Amino acid sequence: MPVNLQPPQALLPIAGASVGVTAAGIRKAGRDDDVVLFELAQGSEAAAVFTTNAFAAAPVLLARERLAAGGCRGLLINSGNANAGTGKAGLADARALCDAAGAALDASGESIWPFSTGVIGQPLPVERMRAGIGSAVADLRADGWLAAAGAIRTTDTLPKGLSQQIDVGVERVTVTGIAKGAGMIRPDMATMLAFIGTDAAILQADLQAALEQAVAASFHCITVDGDTSTNDACVLFATGQGPRLAPASAEWEQFQACLTQLCVTLAQAIVRDAEGATRFVTIAVDGAVDSGEARRVAYTVAESPLVKTALFAGDPNWGRILAAVGRAGVPALKIGGVCISLDDVPIVRGGEPVAGYQESAAAAVMAQTEYTIAINLGRGQARTQVWTCDLGYEYVRINAEYRS
Amino acid sequence: MPVNLQPPQALLPIAGASVGVTAAGIRKAGRDDDVVLFELAQGSEAAAVFTTNAFAAAPVLLARERLAAGGCRGLLINSGNANAGTGKAGLADARALCDAAGAALDASGESIWPFSTGVIGQPLPVERMRAGIGSAVADLRADGWLAAAGAIRTTDTLPKGLSQQIDVGVERVTVTGIAKGAGMIRPDMATMLAFIGTDAAILQADLQAALEQAVAASFHCITVDGDTSTNDACVLFATGQGPRLAPASAEWEQFQACLTQLCVTLAQAIVRDAEGATRFVTIAVDGAVDSGEARRVAYTVAESPLVKTALFAGDPNWGRILAAVGRAGVPALKIGGVCISLDDVPIVRGGEPVAGYQESAAAAVMAQTEYTIAINLGRGQARTQVWTCDLGYEYVRINAEYRS
Repeated sequence: MPVNLQPPQALLPIAGASVGVTAAGIRKAGRDDDVVLFELAQGSEAAAVFTTNAFAAAPVLLARERLAAGGCRGLLINSGNANAGTGKAGLADARALCDAAGAALDASGESIWPFSTGVIGQPLPVERMRAGIGSAVADLRADGWLAAAGAIRTTDTLPKGLSQQIDVGVERVTVTGIAKGAGMIRPDMATMLAFIGTDAAILQADLQAALEQAVAASFHCITVDGDTSTNDACVLFATGQGPRLAPASAEWEQFQACLTQLCVTLAQAIVRDAEGATRFVTIAVDGAVDSGEARRVAYTVAESPLVKTALFAGDPNWGRILAAVGRAGVPALKIGGVCISLDDVPIVRGGEPVAGYQESAAAAVMAQTEYTIAINLGRGQARTQVWTCDLGYEYVRINAEYRS
Repeated sequence: MPVNLQPPQALLPIAGASVGVTAAGIRKAGRDDDVVLFELAQGSEAAAVFTTNAFAAAPVLLARERLAAGGCRGLLINSGNANAGTGKAGLADARALCDAAGAALDASGESIWPFSTGVIGQPLPVERMRAGIGSAVADLRADGWLAAAGAIRTTDTLPKGLSQQIDVGVERVTVTGIAKGAGMIRPDMATMLAFIGTDAAILQADLQAALEQAVAASFHCITVDGDTSTNDACVLFATGQGPRLAPASAEWEQFQACLTQLCVTLAQAIVRDAEGATRFVTIAVDGAVDSGEARRVAYTVAESPLVKTALFAGDPNWGRILAAVGRAGVPALKIGGVCISLDDVPIVRGGEPVAGYQESAAAAVMAQTEYTIAINLGRGQARTQVWTCDLGYEYVRINAEYRS
């Protein structure tokens, strides 16, 4: 059961982008959509951020090359098979399928960027994918985003997507994004994908900078299990059908804020729908010397199995939080400066329980499905926040189930 | 159920050391032993290794001071309360109890080293501890080691201990050690403690060096959940009643090997008895550029929730192992050099499944309670191994249960 998450009811089309989906039977001969094709108008620009895992999957290797080369006319996405751990054959498969999609779209194969999510280490079913491309081309339409949000899912229980609009003078800019699955949260699944489009006209370098800034404040602030996948990718494309936007303008600031907020919503949706999640918890760290230190502390707390099982139990077991802060590798950290609160309930001051601490007040906060653990290190001015979930039986069940 | 672990039937006394235990009702007014007192003969030397957690508990702070000052006439240990997150009052409590133990042993309070394990953030029940010291003194005896191994437990299901002897010329040296609980594996429990004694006569600096070498190859090679506790400590004392040992001699090499092997056995026992463990798994990394790199890879694999749930399930899901290696932060790691085996079954070569890979063979290895995941990075000569366990429902149950 996702935590306080509703599926999108509608997603706005992006002028210059059409989307087709189909059920190609990638995972098994099923009826679920598992192939998505985006066709982008000539002159579109695209930016992307990829996994930091050293063993990036074949589609990531290829998409990275194509980002560097520039020029994007389409995105070819499949769920059900990650095309990871597949070596040279996997690269050749991805390349051949992009060529097929390019031919169908009257574009070069090199202008199609591939993305895959699913089982690691099994060859892509190339012939079914090839047939799927044909069906997806036949399905291309402006309003295909919602169907695409469903088709890119693996174990996500709900589709995730959002549209935003900003007014630029008399013109309107639309941004629509979809995303799927956080961490490597499912047997063999190699996971997070996000695709965001806008109709604005934006230079590629500016688009890349905008995406990196948005991702730093959103997708790079979540963790389910700390297991960075081999396939993570986030793409932002701009079709250039709407107004031109460029940095150092009020419109650009508006666009950046809109993009960041959209990415935050999608990133949080991934955590809300993380496998087995019953709580959505913000770890807010303040008073750090620099942001790296703040992030180290936030991630150590967010990924501690003992903290996560306490979140699951609703147990205000602050000793576990304190111990996680203490092992985060912050040099010369003094316990005397550390304060911890749960929402507005102060728990720890100077490394000890606050005077008059009532466990019942802390337990009431942790009985909620959504709250903030605030940690102040008392060392400096840097802060950050990370969104995470609890660790319960359901996570174990899903991840210990045999692949089938 | 611990994995292939038997409790010790007997532990050999160490001449010059006597041990008393008692049930002081630290955790609750119960009948379980929870206080241990070691009395060491005058002229004993002691060495110690402590937690790296920045928020070390009061007893660790005090014991560190006393290690630096030198001189050890006794060890005062309690389970049920970690005396962590207790600030200045906790330090004063530990100091006062050591003074009481010192007075009872006709030794200075500063020569008594304190150790605590249990709930974080609650004041030590000083008066019950004080009464317990009296009872423990009355219980002092040469053959109290086995009772001590029971008394220092928190959620350990079995006591852990081992004795070894080596012959040095016509004389015999005895080494006996006990240990408890790995990681922070229980609600509020701050955990690993190990106490090892020998009757040999060894200079303090040599003793410290021997302990550090043994710990590096044993207690520093285990992980249950990655949660370094605030109270971890390992002590080695030498009472000087037996032969004198010094480095750069055949006897010293014998002693070092015996000590290291004893620590390895105790460290492995901690993993075998980790909460909820159903498998004991060795992560053996070879072909690394240096040992730091080998350790990073081994720990990343050993602590990956996805790998650990696959171990629980007995699922030969090598994509998860490969993905964990890939996110271990090894610079310029190439997938083409990576090989993975399960015991003697090769799984991955050059980042891809080996030719003729049969999943049934891998599944047969993982159906065992004990096996090795061998990872070769193909970059250099450095190697290491880490011992870990699986992550199943029982770990969640134990750690999500309310503290009571």
